[in-house]
Amino acid sequence: MLTFESDYTTGCTPEILKAFEKTNLEQVSGYGADKFCASAEEKIKAACNAPYAQVEFICGGTQTNQTIIAAMLQRYQGVIAAKTGHISCHEAGAIEYTGHKVFELPQVMGKLQAKDIRNFVEIFEKQDAKDHMVFPGMVYISHPTEYGTLYSLSELSQISETCHEFGLNLFLDGARLGYGLMSYQTDVTLPDIARLCDVFYIGGTKVGALCGEAVVFTHNNRPKHFLTMKKQNGALLAKGRLLGVQFDTLFTDGLYFRIAKHAIDMAERIKTIMRNAGIPFFLESPTNQQFVILDNDTIERLKKDVGFERWEIVDEDHTAVRFATSWSTTNEDLDKLEKLLK
Amino acid sequence: MLTFESDYTTGCTPEILKAFEKTNLEQVSGYGADKFCASAEEKIKAACNAPYAQVEFICGGTQTNQTIIAAMLQRYQGVIAAKTGHISCHEAGAIEYTGHKVFELPQVMGKLQAKDIRNFVEIFEKQDAKDHMVFPGMVYISHPTEYGTLYSLSELSQISETCHEFGLNLFLDGARLGYGLMSYQTDVTLPDIARLCDVFYIGGTKVGALCGEAVVFTHNNRPKHFLTMKKQNGALLAKGRLLGVQFDTLFTDGLYFRIAKHAIDMAERIKTIMRNAGIPFFLESPTNQQFVILDNDTIERLKKDVGFERWEIVDEDHTAVRFATSWSTTNEDLDKLEKLLK
Amino acid sequence: MLTFESDYTTGCTPEILKAFEKTNLEQVSGYGADKFCASAEEKIKAACNAPYAQVEFICGGTQTNQTIIAAMLQRYQGVIAAKTGHISCHEAGAIEYTGHKVFELPQVMGKLQAKDIRNFVEIFEKQDAKDHMVFPGMVYISHPTEYGTLYSLSELSQISETCHEFGLNLFLDGARLGYGLMSYQTDVTLPDIARLCDVFYIGGTKVGALCGEAVVFTHNNRPKHFLTMKKQNGALLAKGRLLGVQFDTLFTDGLYFRIAKHAIDMAERIKTIMRNAGIPFFLESPTNQQFVILDNDTIERLKKDVGFERWEIVDEDHTAVRFATSWSTTNEDLDKLEKLLK
Amino acid sequence: MLTFESDYTTGCTPEILKAFEKTNLEQVSGYGADKFCASAEEKIKAACNAPYAQVEFICGGTQTNQTIIAAMLQRYQGVIAAKTGHISCHEAGAIEYTGHKVFELPQVMGKLQAKDIRNFVEIFEKQDAKDHMVFPGMVYISHPTEYGTLYSLSELSQISETCHEFGLNLFLDGARLGYGLMSYQTDVTLPDIARLCDVFYIGGTKVGALCGEAVVFTHNNRPKHFLTMKKQNGALLAKGRLLGVQFDTLFTDGLYFRIAKHAIDMAERIKTIMRNAGIPFFLESPTNQQFVILDNDTIERLKKDVGFERWEIVDEDHTAVRFATSWSTTNEDLDKLEKLLK
Repeated sequence: MLTFESDYTTGCTPEILKAFEKTNLEQVSGYGADKFCASAEEKIKAACNAPYAQVEFICGGTQTNQTIIAAMLQRYQGVIAAKTGHISCHEAGAIEYTGHKVFELPQVMGKLQAKDIRNFVEIFEKQDAKDHMVFPGMVYISHPTEYGTLYSLSELSQISETCHEFGLNLFLDGARLGYGLMSYQTDVTLPDIARLCDVFYIGGTKVGALCGEAVVFTHNNRPKHFLTMKKQNGALLAKGRLLGVQFDTLFTDGLYFRIAKHAIDMAERIKTIMRNAGIPFFLESPTNQQFVILDNDTIERLKKDVGFERWEIVDEDHTAVRFATSWSTTNEDLDKLEKLLK
Repeated sequence: MLTFESDYTTGCTPEILKAFEKTNLEQVSGYGADKFCASAEEKIKAACNAPYAQVEFICGGTQTNQTIIAAMLQRYQGVIAAKTGHISCHEAGAIEYTGHKVFELPQVMGKLQAKDIRNFVEIFEKQDAKDHMVFPGMVYISHPTEYGTLYSLSELSQISETCHEFGLNLFLDGARLGYGLMSYQTDVTLPDIARLCDVFYIGGTKVGALCGEAVVFTHNNRPKHFLTMKKQNGALLAKGRLLGVQFDTLFTDGLYFRIAKHAIDMAERIKTIMRNAGIPFFLESPTNQQFVILDNDTIERLKKDVGFERWEIVDEDHTAVRFATSWSTTNEDLDKLEKLLK
Repeated sequence: MLTFESDYTTGCTPEILKAFEKTNLEQVSGYGADKFCASAEEKIKAACNAPYAQVEFICGGTQTNQTIIAAMLQRYQGVIAAKTGHISCHEAGAIEYTGHKVFELPQVMGKLQAKDIRNFVEIFEKQDAKDHMVFPGMVYISHPTEYGTLYSLSELSQISETCHEFGLNLFLDGARLGYGLMSYQTDVTLPDIARLCDVFYIGGTKVGALCGEAVVFTHNNRPKHFLTMKKQNGALLAKGRLLGVQFDTLFTDGLYFRIAKHAIDMAERIKTIMRNAGIPFFLESPTNQQFVILDNDTIERLKKDVGFERWEIVDEDHTAVRFATSWSTTNEDLDKLEKLLK
Repeated sequence: MLTFESDYTTGCTPEILKAFEKTNLEQVSGYGADKFCASAEEKIKAACNAPYAQVEFICGGTQTNQTIIAAMLQRYQGVIAAKTGHISCHEAGAIEYTGHKVFELPQVMGKLQAKDIRNFVEIFEKQDAKDHMVFPGMVYISHPTEYGTLYSLSELSQISETCHEFGLNLFLDGARLGYGLMSYQTDVTLPDIARLCDVFYIGGTKVGALCGEAVVFTHNNRPKHFLTMKKQNGALLAKGRLLGVQFDTLFTDGLYFRIAKHAIDMAERIKTIMRNAGIPFFLESPTNQQFVILDNDTIERLKKDVGFERWEIVDEDHTAVRFATSWSTTNEDLDKLEKLLK
């Protein structure tokens, strides 16, 4: 069946399967101490233009968020996130499970605002009872956000400056980073992110890998004994090569960017198809997730032939739904979608 | 110096000191298995009109909140509280430290609204991704609230009904419960609370004891192995008598209510004094905490002679401040305050 | 280079790569709700002869142990393990990180004894201060153990009976289960394990998969809201198919058992080679890990040509070392080893 | 009834009650920022001969252990204790509840040996897989131990040297410290402890107070943001004066030492009584807890008239029992005991 349910409905980009085959019999050490991870690290550092970065590979997104946040916060600190941030609502309390509070700030189109962060921290700092409160220690943003939206370079710079003015680490969740970087409407590059954030990750699972996220500590700031804490979080794979081979492949000859660009192209065509079909957008997304409003009858009718995700109830008769593209979306898929919407 | 800084600036009601002296040489077992705790439990059950209640004593408020919430929630559950609730902002993340999320809902005068709880849970229930989210398992309210305000019987009943409709435990933090019960403007009684809540506590520390809170599980619903979990939270005292003797005294001949009533009378006189001095109220509080707005010059002047707490910045020139009364506030104190405000 | 360093030095059995390719473009839902996981579950239930079992897939071993133990224990309970158990010493405190104590019992050749478990629980039950102690709630064993040794059916039955007599869950860590089942010297079958344990896992990472462990709740006893707790532990993969495809392949036409058998055959030949070379065994292992004692000069010499793991210091001049085989070990590898040892 | 069940069966030394009365109406700030705490801190620093020490007051023993250990350990570290240590077995897993492992080492008469600590750490340091293990970060000892025994100055010095050689913090649990210091058979002084340990506490609950333990960070090494972490552990009292007044009293005119000395004198007389009655000792205790072996018939007979604690089963017919003295034990009590034993 035709589906746009998510960007993780198919397997991985074929180059990865080829790399698995090619390297399968090479014998390497476990736990990330292998040449594939080492090579992937070098390529990622180069792509980030961040010679002092350190790269770590972790299997999935929630695990990455949990492991990074718990390793970088002091015990008395919490993390600031948008009310709609992934860690705020869709990770089953994985951050709180490690003992840390998530401060939920308002969002605009899924994005935190530098002024809201500043305001929050300034109010905190003025409290007489400050020592009875959780200290803000980190800011978590995602790029693209839950709504597929993007920070502009100016917004990201302001957030970065605000964080560093107040001694907060800035952590960017890039589960879908490729789509953000290849959007037609962004002025933010990978080196910008490496320069402005303290830590971020380059998502693999949702951008063409079978699994895996590449965490970048941008300025030689990986916490001491990180491997032990990673293990303690259950995030250390025995066959570290599984992640090394994938990221080494994705960062060879620009594959990561190429497949992300393809998904963006497909998403742009979806926009056109929707617009032509007179379907209103729930919000303007410049990335691979497109949110439109359908009436519930149309949803029932379409559901038989095409997969998509219900996102939010708009009113009694209408629902916002999401169509996502990926490396494996084809023009033939879109032709079919176009026909169905007529 | 004259101070209205809080309701815990002095020691305890003299009857408690007398009881300590009287019982000092009696030899009893430790860890709460003593006759004072047993007697206090019976008296509290009677005062609550709750024959199937179980009573536990814990030393302080944050510890009580942490111990109760962590013992009653399942691992995948969180607790709903007002954004201004004590557990939300003034307990240094003690709830998250035990692994549980605090869902922060909007408040009106420090109070949660039944309709907001309903709305929150209904939205949760409708989520496709519900299993990726923390499950609401409990509602936490305080009575009086952080702002000294009170739930009406009708409001409390609605919250109770909403909780039970959705299978949520209702937990009432009564750190200042006495003042709530003796307010001139309440229709809520202790038996009402015992009937409507699943668990609540009767505050001692802020109502005339040296320390201690009496937790009431209202309907034979104390969690299995509660003593062990209490110990695990560091909340089990070897000399359990310390709490037993105090609560036995407070619940003998209505002492708890009498000293709370005295503090309310004093607070009502503060209201009159403030009104007469033309000082505006920050909000209408029917309990022992009175919040007024002072200009910053007045604050500087007064500060030399009288203690009070800065509560919230109102504007550049004005600050909301709190005056609290207790069992030990005297009319002489208020005469002095009246003079200072002239 | 020739290496016997571990059973995870190479990639995966080629059938898995083929299955990845074959299924790569099939579109399925995420988070384990895909047909590959469903099919793998059915095949595993059949292989276990456990129609009421429930199967869950998790990426790695430590994560599996942490997720299972934290989900099955009550908050006031701990888990019993051998002093040499993986959770006791080689998981960086991942169990304690979730708040639970590991009770370390003595071991014989890496194995727990039913009588030691009984003794431990009986002493616990007799304590006056029992409620001030962690309650034993689960027994954790591994099969094969850290030392490659195996429980006999009689030993396993006794442990199972003891556990169930005292209301403890029995959890078997089968990170290397295939090698245990295909050992020349075992009388324990997969259905035996499913019958005697409450939960266990069939290791993939160390038995021919790229990653993944298949957890079997043997009698419809998967904890309520397990998916949410799995997510909370960071153990829920978006592309659940990664694990489903692998286990579906491993449990098709007995592949799992076939590759495990191959590793055992290779290990048996290593035994012969060692014996012929006059090298003493550190202990008798019936599985794919062989432990021998080498003098340190020999270690230095061999190290240049062959990889193996230093295991334990025996005396100043001798060290116990481990040689492990896997699906990818070949007779040519062993010919080389034989030559090197001469 | 006559009882020697524990050293916390009665209330507190009368001087404390007097101090409560005297200070009851003095108005002070909350959370430990009061003059009583300040004065107690100075007196304790003087008694310790430790001008750079910092003193914190916490309500009970388990809470103190939990708060100190969790505040001083890094996330990847655990604490070393005797297998019979209080944190190892009688705190319901309070340490593990904060995420940290307790390494249980063998004990001799309740005491850790410097050589066992050294051995444990040296083995840890030599592990290839060290990063997959919990790092030892602290050593916990109690003085007196669970068995009433004491470290000699030489033993304590050796442990201290070993700890500091390996960068471990040394934490001494002094729940019964007074009895250790006033033993007839000790060469360890309070300044010795302050000089040799990094942190320790002076027990109040079991040495004449109603509650409270005074934690001494010996060399200006209180962890940053300790107040916030204390609050997070539920260990911060609103009426901090409760602890300040008690410790200020106990450390005025040597009261703490005087009442401890009295209990020791009483314990020495118990020794004589037991010896004269031909009752064998379970072990030689130089402090206020005396352990003797009684046959079970005698236990049944005595139980009607005198309280004591069953400690350990010796054989089918005999049990080790504990008799404890305290500030409130009288010669009349001992006369009665003597008569009963005849």
